[in-house]
Amino acid sequence: MSARLSELAEHAGIDFQGDGDCVIDAVNTLSDAVAGEISFLANPKYLSQLQNTNASAVILDPQIAAEFASANVLISENPYLSFAHIAKWFEDHDRGELPIGIHPSAVIGSECNIPDNCFIGANVSIGSYVTLGSGCRIEAGTVIADHVLLGENVHLYSNVTIYSHVTLGDNGIVHSGTVIGSDGFGFANDKGVWIKVPQRGGVRIGRDVEIGACTTIDCGAINDTIIEDGVKIDNLIQVAHNVFIGKNTAIAGQTGIAGSTTIGSHCTIAGGVGIVGHIEIGDYCHIAGMALVSKSLPDKSVASGAVPAMDHGIWSKSMVRLRQLDDMAKKIRKLEKQIESLSNGS
Amino acid sequence: MSARLSELAEHAGIDFQGDGDCVIDAVNTLSDAVAGEISFLANPKYLSQLQNTNASAVILDPQIAAEFASANVLISENPYLSFAHIAKWFEDHDRGELPIGIHPSAVIGSECNIPDNCFIGANVSIGSYVTLGSGCRIEAGTVIADHVLLGENVHLYSNVTIYSHVTLGDNGIVHSGTVIGSDGFGFANDKGVWIKVPQRGGVRIGRDVEIGACTTIDCGAINDTIIEDGVKIDNLIQVAHNVFIGKNTAIAGQTGIAGSTTIGSHCTIAGGVGIVGHIEIGDYCHIAGMALVSKSLPDKSVASGAVPAMDHGIWSKSMVRLRQLDDMAKKIRKLEKQIESLSNGS
Amino acid sequence: MSARLSELAEHAGIDFQGDGDCVIDAVNTLSDAVAGEISFLANPKYLSQLQNTNASAVILDPQIAAEFASANVLISENPYLSFAHIAKWFEDHDRGELPIGIHPSAVIGSECNIPDNCFIGANVSIGSYVTLGSGCRIEAGTVIADHVLLGENVHLYSNVTIYSHVTLGDNGIVHSGTVIGSDGFGFANDKGVWIKVPQRGGVRIGRDVEIGACTTIDCGAINDTIIEDGVKIDNLIQVAHNVFIGKNTAIAGQTGIAGSTTIGSHCTIAGGVGIVGHIEIGDYCHIAGMALVSKSLPDKSVASGAVPAMDHGIWSKSMVRLRQLDDMAKKIRKLEKQIESLSNGS
Repeated sequence: MSARLSELAEHAGIDFQGDGDCVIDAVNTLSDAVAGEISFLANPKYLSQLQNTNASAVILDPQIAAEFASANVLISENPYLSFAHIAKWFEDHDRGELPIGIHPSAVIGSECNIPDNCFIGANVSIGSYVTLGSGCRIEAGTVIADHVLLGENVHLYSNVTIYSHVTLGDNGIVHSGTVIGSDGFGFANDKGVWIKVPQRGGVRIGRDVEIGACTTIDCGAINDTIIEDGVKIDNLIQVAHNVFIGKNTAIAGQTGIAGSTTIGSHCTIAGGVGIVGHIEIGDYCHIAGMALVSKSLPDKSVASGAVPAMDHGIWSKSMVRLRQLDDMAKKIRKLEKQIESLSNGS
Repeated sequence: MSARLSELAEHAGIDFQGDGDCVIDAVNTLSDAVAGEISFLANPKYLSQLQNTNASAVILDPQIAAEFASANVLISENPYLSFAHIAKWFEDHDRGELPIGIHPSAVIGSECNIPDNCFIGANVSIGSYVTLGSGCRIEAGTVIADHVLLGENVHLYSNVTIYSHVTLGDNGIVHSGTVIGSDGFGFANDKGVWIKVPQRGGVRIGRDVEIGACTTIDCGAINDTIIEDGVKIDNLIQVAHNVFIGKNTAIAGQTGIAGSTTIGSHCTIAGGVGIVGHIEIGDYCHIAGMALVSKSLPDKSVASGAVPAMDHGIWSKSMVRLRQLDDMAKKIRKLEKQIESLSNGS
Repeated sequence: MSARLSELAEHAGIDFQGDGDCVIDAVNTLSDAVAGEISFLANPKYLSQLQNTNASAVILDPQIAAEFASANVLISENPYLSFAHIAKWFEDHDRGELPIGIHPSAVIGSECNIPDNCFIGANVSIGSYVTLGSGCRIEAGTVIADHVLLGENVHLYSNVTIYSHVTLGDNGIVHSGTVIGSDGFGFANDKGVWIKVPQRGGVRIGRDVEIGACTTIDCGAINDTIIEDGVKIDNLIQVAHNVFIGKNTAIAGQTGIAGSTTIGSHCTIAGGVGIVGHIEIGDYCHIAGMALVSKSLPDKSVASGAVPAMDHGIWSKSMVRLRQLDDMAKKIRKLEKQIESLSNGS
């Protein structure tokens, strides 16, 4: 599928400069683009690639666009966002019509409500009392247990597992291998032996939520685990029982959130972060990669914790000293007193 | 299903105070409970919720029960444990009869032994020479390879994968996405090229073991990987080849244990911990979240390692200094000598 | 299956000493081996086990072999490598003929090319325009989307998921639960709301690559994610969009690599490592367990970062001081000046 530059500008709701009739048939990176393709510059570090690109058009912010007055440009205050819109346009038009219908190998329980425009793939298993909204796509090998409610246009990729009593709002996307609603890790200790505490809550997930691959979201112990609208969760993330994640928060790969912790809205949490249980992270917090968050954080906190990797020799010496830090601090205090005494005495 | 308070007390093997005929039909949290529900207080931090709860009865320790003399109370030395027993009672009675039988879409190999009271779900695949104990439940999409032995009442949730030569004891629970028996990460280096070392051992798991979602337990290289009775393993955990985990040890999410390491019994290992290979952790050890355990630990060790997250500005300065720690220690030593010399001289 | 020691020596391309007619029927560890079995010593720490082994033969380096002149020995400069060859010989001969053919429950799309000597297991789902090389084995429950290309002798274990536009070279092995080609974590922020950036690249994986269980490899955003020949990837690893991993690099469990990062060839990356996005790691680098790599590293770097676990009490004090490190450094500087001044004055 192709479009003229002026059409793409209209689609993205932005202005253009140069030849509005220039025909574009794909998106690409600045360095790889060929004639007929559109690219974008969001990171100034790639400015040199802009100078050498073969792209027929580029998406630029107004300031840089002015410097490239002779080029075909979509002018955007947020080039990466406009690129998202343009790439989505090509994706939608290139994909062709999506299949609908239920594959004969799929197994579906009783009392289900599956609109005709849904797609249910090969070897899918759906339990009883399951309701799907219009336009859902459930791909091969995915399993949905009883009493599950999916909104409109939900897309579950292959080999996803949804336990019972899970709800997932409109436009939800769940990638393969992910498990939603598994039992929380709850055990009472009886003289050294762990006794399972039944995990009877569900999981409630809002609309416009995307969840990556091989991520696990446990059901609540009594109440539900809750993920609000617009949250984005990457791969291999652990969300424990009764966690609450506020709207539009984004969490990168391999982060883990322990039980009953509340995370505010509009947070950005980098990869490999660990957040202990029963604490509260405010809104608009940023947590850096591999940090261990052990206490509640107020709104707008910027927190870091991990030790950046260094040369192994320096690291070895530093780690020996790290255990001696309290002694070192005490020695400094003693030296200060001695100096004071010497200075007074001299 | 409902029960009188006196019946629940008898079931849990504990005393009650107040109206033994009070009818209870569900468990709930202190804050959400309504009339007809029972709750519990295990964490003193929620004492204010107890004062305001609408629950018809609560599970309390004897001291707090005495303070609430007018309330309907189950009196327990371990309220969380008693709650587990009560919640289990409701779960068992509310659930109704579990399905049994083999779904027609399941594929089962030769020389298998599957008792009639087992449940085998849709699109399950079972290899040859597989023996299941009485009352096993194998849910949709799960795959069991050849030569697997499951004890009685084993529950494999959907989309679990069990490789060949795995045994799992009575009452085992395995959550979705989990893989047991995959090849250990064993390669010999041949002038820069990695040559696979065949992983020919199995996995032996005791009774009453629960394993969370998307966890991986590798088979042994030659001997078996071993997990003893009563071990509880959370989500997204890596157990490498030839690891040994002693009975009743509990391990929280995203922890990784490298090859040939032995972990004692009754340990509690928090989330995100890394334990290097070929070491021995004693019994009754506690390892705090995200610690890297690089050496063997004696019994009853309490070990920590991760740097708790702090304000990004403080962290930046501290990390610069961390690389200078050895220099700082040497400067302190030099200052001490200078002071000594000055003191002697003065 | 059994073989004489001389035959095994010939197979492994090494010399032997002792009784070349000694019959060997299995491999085992030094401590567990019985008559008829062969073992190996690669780690001097297990030398005492060599002295007490019941193995009929052992694989030793020339120096140790000379010390055990009366034993039946395969003499190897790299005993672990030779063990890999011998164990492979027994594995190949013990296994018997592998099944071939397509299970009737498998679902296969249009325009696929599947050679007759491939094995397609129960409930496998294969999309359209999929090409398999000779001798591929696709086990039960695995899902392959459209436009996937597998080389010869590729082995996908059960419940693997391969998204569209993935290529995997000859002899590739992928363990269960792993997901290849899922969407990268790419979102543009539109006044607080995350807008999905379509992930339109694929994944290109070379030959002789092994990928562990429950690992996730995202497709590229525009270009492909690339993994070169001979790379070995363990369990629960995250490889983000547009990562490049050079040939023969090995990566241990639970490591995460953020987007657009390039990793050189012949690197060894330990478990639980985090590598930030958009950096370059050179060739022959070694990164120690749980390190956070936040900057590019030149060739042959040896980098560490994690704090090794210590007694909780020492750790508590050290962590308090860690936040005071910059103050401590400034105090030392001040003391140095005061001493200098005192020394000059005295």
